[in-house]
Amino acid sequence: MKLCESSVESFEIEGKKEMNKLRVLAVVGTVAMCVGGAAAATCVTNLSMAGFTIPDETKWTYEPKVPLLKQDKDGVVRGLNPGFHGRNAGLERINGANAIGDENAKAWSSVAWRNEKVHGQFVVWSQEGVRRLRASVSPLVSAEGNVLPQEAVTTRFVRHVVGHSVRKGRITSREDLYGDCLDDVEQLDLPPCGYRPVWLTVSVPVDARPGVYKGVLALRAGAALKLDFPLELTVRSHTLPSPSQWRLFVDLWQHPWAVARYHGVKPFSELHYNLMGMYLREVASLGQKTITATIVDDPWGQGNNYDLFHSMVEVTRRKDGTWSYDYSVFDRYVTFAKECGLGPQIHCYTLAGFKTSYTDEATGERLLSISDSNKSREYWVRFLKDFESHVKAKGWLGDVYVALDESHPDVLRSSAELLRSAAPGLKLAMAGNRKPSEYKGVDIDNFSLHYSCITPEFLDEAKIRRAKGLTTSCYVCGGRPCTQLTRPLYENTWIGIFAVASGLDGILRWAAFTWPRDPLFDGSFIQWPPGGTYLLYPGPRSSMRWEMLRDGIEIAEKIRILREQGKSTPELERLLEPAAFKRETQFFSERVSAVRAAVDAL
Amino acid sequence: MKLCESSVESFEIEGKKEMNKLRVLAVVGTVAMCVGGAAAATCVTNLSMAGFTIPDETKWTYEPKVPLLKQDKDGVVRGLNPGFHGRNAGLERINGANAIGDENAKAWSSVAWRNEKVHGQFVVWSQEGVRRLRASVSPLVSAEGNVLPQEAVTTRFVRHVVGHSVRKGRITSREDLYGDCLDDVEQLDLPPCGYRPVWLTVSVPVDARPGVYKGVLALRAGAALKLDFPLELTVRSHTLPSPSQWRLFVDLWQHPWAVARYHGVKPFSELHYNLMGMYLREVASLGQKTITATIVDDPWGQGNNYDLFHSMVEVTRRKDGTWSYDYSVFDRYVTFAKECGLGPQIHCYTLAGFKTSYTDEATGERLLSISDSNKSREYWVRFLKDFESHVKAKGWLGDVYVALDESHPDVLRSSAELLRSAAPGLKLAMAGNRKPSEYKGVDIDNFSLHYSCITPEFLDEAKIRRAKGLTTSCYVCGGRPCTQLTRPLYENTWIGIFAVASGLDGILRWAAFTWPRDPLFDGSFIQWPPGGTYLLYPGPRSSMRWEMLRDGIEIAEKIRILREQGKSTPELERLLEPAAFKRETQFFSERVSAVRAAVDAL
Repeated sequence: MKLCESSVESFEIEGKKEMNKLRVLAVVGTVAMCVGGAAAATCVTNLSMAGFTIPDETKWTYEPKVPLLKQDKDGVVRGLNPGFHGRNAGLERINGANAIGDENAKAWSSVAWRNEKVHGQFVVWSQEGVRRLRASVSPLVSAEGNVLPQEAVTTRFVRHVVGHSVRKGRITSREDLYGDCLDDVEQLDLPPCGYRPVWLTVSVPVDARPGVYKGVLALRAGAALKLDFPLELTVRSHTLPSPSQWRLFVDLWQHPWAVARYHGVKPFSELHYNLMGMYLREVASLGQKTITATIVDDPWGQGNNYDLFHSMVEVTRRKDGTWSYDYSVFDRYVTFAKECGLGPQIHCYTLAGFKTSYTDEATGERLLSISDSNKSREYWVRFLKDFESHVKAKGWLGDVYVALDESHPDVLRSSAELLRSAAPGLKLAMAGNRKPSEYKGVDIDNFSLHYSCITPEFLDEAKIRRAKGLTTSCYVCGGRPCTQLTRPLYENTWIGIFAVASGLDGILRWAAFTWPRDPLFDGSFIQWPPGGTYLLYPGPRSSMRWEMLRDGIEIAEKIRILREQGKSTPELERLLEPAAFKRETQFFSERVSAVRAAVDAL
Repeated sequence: MKLCESSVESFEIEGKKEMNKLRVLAVVGTVAMCVGGAAAATCVTNLSMAGFTIPDETKWTYEPKVPLLKQDKDGVVRGLNPGFHGRNAGLERINGANAIGDENAKAWSSVAWRNEKVHGQFVVWSQEGVRRLRASVSPLVSAEGNVLPQEAVTTRFVRHVVGHSVRKGRITSREDLYGDCLDDVEQLDLPPCGYRPVWLTVSVPVDARPGVYKGVLALRAGAALKLDFPLELTVRSHTLPSPSQWRLFVDLWQHPWAVARYHGVKPFSELHYNLMGMYLREVASLGQKTITATIVDDPWGQGNNYDLFHSMVEVTRRKDGTWSYDYSVFDRYVTFAKECGLGPQIHCYTLAGFKTSYTDEATGERLLSISDSNKSREYWVRFLKDFESHVKAKGWLGDVYVALDESHPDVLRSSAELLRSAAPGLKLAMAGNRKPSEYKGVDIDNFSLHYSCITPEFLDEAKIRRAKGLTTSCYVCGGRPCTQLTRPLYENTWIGIFAVASGLDGILRWAAFTWPRDPLFDGSFIQWPPGGTYLLYPGPRSSMRWEMLRDGIEIAEKIRILREQGKSTPELERLLEPAAFKRETQFFSERVSAVRAAVDAL
């Protein structure tokens, strides 16, 4: 629909001219056409692809920037030859500078247990623009003629987001492009000098016959272009239990309000639960052991969250001055999360701050809870007693933790004192930066320590705590290793390996899908580094980081099982000796590879 | 979650400092807190509200800009006195420059038929920041003691979006703020020098007793601030039929792919249908008579659509060279849209261009349909015959139109010729800019002419066409009147009145929810003026424009009924004389008010 000729206004005429510059780009779940911008034109050999500029509008239709091979200042791409090229890229993050490599290395081989997921990555690049890049995999067949079912093997294109860099605490205007999201797009184009990683995942069925399975991954473009990548997967006789049976304590905080806002649905509406189910089941597939719940409004504030958390408990001060607590949202959400495979622990944020809001029945106002210390104590004792008896009636007592996030020892102490006196049946959870023993006189039932604060003394305490039935884990947040996009992919895998090697119960990460405003396009949120607030993308779409974090958890479970079966080796145990661990990027990647190889050999 | 102290990195320390600047803002469906930025501080008297700056991040949490009263260059707001103020703002778009007005004009009165919706608007403003602005309405009671049910009366806060201005065809950096969206937020704050319009809607029950109903709308802020607005609604004994019974032909194009993309769900998944249902039922509430369907990929291109339309018909070229057509999406969507109250007409876009894509079974490629003219004709004849027999089998023959959008007469002629010869059972629809008679030798079953092209000769043709059972409507798109945010609100109401006055069958608008990337924040799309591509917001949330467009359609139906009952008056008919219509903004507003008053008097 455009303006009728006899009423054309200038902006419309211009508009049509503008339109001619636009190239057709498709969206979510269909065919994506990525077209090179001016930058690409410098090395264009196929003129039919050249001469287009991309108006700002279109940069948003699939990716914030078109992934292009890095050109030197003369506009030349080193090592780029005419034609359609590709290689096995391994499990590293690919960018414009490292995409081109040894094209003789096309073959992929891996070792897996039954019921395990294994991954591979390939990258293709082309000097000329090519249309309709698409992947297909032949059946994986063993020498004995066994075949892995087709649905066991999937390929996903790596999709890119930008993230702003931070220098000396200030957000800079520089935006870097990161391949991370694993997308369900069926086909897409390569612009001139474009590259595109392709992610392979094999989910070995629990009943797969051991053996060596072979097949071919084919990447086609246009009608005639085709590259073959030989695949070889050795399936061992070991069987990995299902995630619900995994022992590692995994705590990735969930954010229901981010899902509601992003998907444009009302929090805790039927549509919201339909969507949440997809995210919670994905989280459960990592062996998640906790449900993130809230008992106050805004337990963190906006420094960590584009979308504020609200309380799952509605508090009302009745006209007669008495108080009522509505747990209907809390109850339904917890029950639903359990159905999705989360739990048994229920971590309720938070007591620190002793602050929430309630509705004043008389005026209809939403007010902040009384802050005067005496009244405040009265308020919280009243609530905690009511809450304890409620969860007891629900049969959840023993699984419910009042959770604190990096609170000062004094805050922890006052919270613990209040909790123990008012509701001794509720447990205490905290992520902190000191050994538990430094919080004098407080027994923290579930404690997580920041990776960078871990000492041999802490690891000793963890063993004693475990004997007492207390949970002790470590968490990453900034520093290294970490899961953000600015850190090497290997660091995600290292986290699970580190936990089992150090004799900790598990791992914690504060953000599974605490999205910035538009995570499919910009992964950064204020000063948080790109990807620092989430691992899963809307859809849900998985990420390379998510799959590698899960990979490390799988390795941890395999190590536990091998040890229990007395099948571990001195070689493997040597690699798992915490005293020898370093905190260097190089170490993480080498040690992950070494541990993986040692486990695969058994 | 923040970094452990012993591993703090500078950006984190800085990050925390940054955080102190952030104010807590809530999102979708809850309490929204809008805080004045530096601009507001110039006229702040309540220092507790002053001295805050808002980082870019927060501007996105509820509205792109905080609505503030217009200050002159000295930072003074003319006519602003201390305290909390308000007035009846009428049915005009309120902004920072026209919000302040006669505070003695607080009373609202209106006249309604039974089963009709009537609206009012109020605006409040305050020199000091006030917290928790909220609205409540007392029961509307008649002298006879009849009471309108509580759910019949609703209030919604007006929410703002920005739109960029276009000068001489170029997008300028200037962004204007427009109040348009009717939001479900329960409470929000007024910053210092802030204003906020509140929208009142009364949906009179079909069984309401005629009479004069009175009540009070109260706008409260904080604990003590309160403004009362007396309401008086006269309910006549006339009854307006339900939208499904309305006679005016209404065609507002729907865009399933925009809903799928915005809400982040897969097109035509169960979740997508759940969401689409809410939008389609809202469209049906305007008496929508057509279902927008597609039979080709990308019938328009991206010039009109941030989200491309795709084909609801999957075409495959089999290995043996034969062709297969999968109508499953088309069938389910049309059936679903009918269940939602749309139809009976099914407008299928498009034949113009003779271009679509199909899947080549042999290579798995998606290719463009053959463009060579002979092959092309062969392709389309084959498809159209198949399509005709399919819709015949579905029992839809007679309701299915192949639709063209502003095609050149030659394109129309070739399309019509092809359609008539290949599938004479399918009808033809087109929006154009010439009288139907100028498309020599082509009978267009459903024709819509751009408002600016309407002449007395065309209106004569429309009457002859109606006698032949053909549908003739007018459409707006740019120019004036129009529904975009840059046009006065009254023009939306005028469209329906104009159609009935001119003896046309109805109205057409190309965009009910063809959203730009982020319609809740920026209403503009490339050169299209703000709001020019949509009337409904995600949620769905209604808009002032949507309600006023519907209001004009209701008036048109009331005029039709009054005429049929012989109750129209010379005074009313004089106001409806097309020969006297002008194309000036001033005329539209005066004539809408005059027609409304004349109808209300009957």
